[in-house]
Amino acid sequence: MEDLFKDIEFIVELEKMKNIFRRTMIIGSNRRENDAEHSWHISIMALLLEKYSINKVDINRVIQMLLIHDIVEIYSGDTFAYDNVLNKDKLQRELNAMEIIKSKLSFENREKVENLWHEFEDKITNESKFANAMDRIQPMLSNIYSGNGGTWTKYDVKIEQVLKRMEPIKDFNMEIYNFILKKANYILEC
Amino acid sequence: MEDLFKDIEFIVELEKMKNIFRRTMIIGSNRRENDAEHSWHISIMALLLEKYSINKVDINRVIQMLLIHDIVEIYSGDTFAYDNVLNKDKLQRELNAMEIIKSKLSFENREKVENLWHEFEDKITNESKFANAMDRIQPMLSNIYSGNGGTWTKYDVKIEQVLKRMEPIKDFNMEIYNFILKKANYILEC
Repeated sequence: MEDLFKDIEFIVELEKMKNIFRRTMIIGSNRRENDAEHSWHISIMALLLEKYSINKVDINRVIQMLLIHDIVEIYSGDTFAYDNVLNKDKLQRELNAMEIIKSKLSFENREKVENLWHEFEDKITNESKFANAMDRIQPMLSNIYSGNGGTWTKYDVKIEQVLKRMEPIKDFNMEIYNFILKKANYILEC
Repeated sequence: MEDLFKDIEFIVELEKMKNIFRRTMIIGSNRRENDAEHSWHISIMALLLEKYSINKVDINRVIQMLLIHDIVEIYSGDTFAYDNVLNKDKLQRELNAMEIIKSKLSFENREKVENLWHEFEDKITNESKFANAMDRIQPMLSNIYSGNGGTWTKYDVKIEQVLKRMEPIKDFNMEIYNFILKKANYILEC
């Protein structure tokens, strides 16, 4: 009983993900995407792109990782991928945030959430690599299909920075990698 | 190759879920929740509430259903749970929407998405019952924790209507059912 209501209160706390805004803009709307929207988009994306993966993966493990991968940001805030300064202490801020999350969950969920988060961050298992590829591809598709280059153009991102962010996509599917590369080159040259 | 880009274009189309607004308000914010946020919230909620389920379920099937359960609304629009008029032709509008979705997906994904959606709608399997309970509980928690009764108060909903919406929660967990019932009674009596 106590466990149940501890977890319920944390589920209500997760509401805050709907007010953590990323740099990516919603296509067709003049506002930034929030963490809840992003997490849903990459989770359903994983479900739809399973068959294009180079490596065989447990797609359910991938989806579970994607559902929780950003919840640390409730306590650490979002860190823009191309912000070199904020990215320096990102891991420490997120580790502290994970401690807060654990204190708010029942024992079993504590372990479940922490394991999924570390697996995602470590990028070692095929499931983690697939999940990280989804996390990279989605904002890039948004930039490509927005019609204005999205965050790449707005924040004057360099192709070298994009290439670095694209690395995990190589482990997922080279056709998507090459498609994004071609579009990024075109957008950043204009 | 053709399949891959068909699915990619549909993933970009899913962006529209971020602009389909439900009646539920975001706690701590003066705006309505959208379908993408709602779908993420109930999917992670399923992950965290698995152990409280009366029936043993394949939690991954539940999550997959929840990720896709509302995508028909891209073409049918959201139907407010307590709107008796709009709910009359809801199923037909959603069936038509599913046909549009299928035409936009690669063959394998067509089958995957359609099967998940029908299973969710049919409420027969334990996984579907669990998923439907999540879909009902989340907006109710929002009403309870909002501090103002949320949609129940705003749209003058009757306790009989709430009780009907609560039915699937009985198959999930009676403690949560009783908790929501108590709170709903309190809010609607005020």
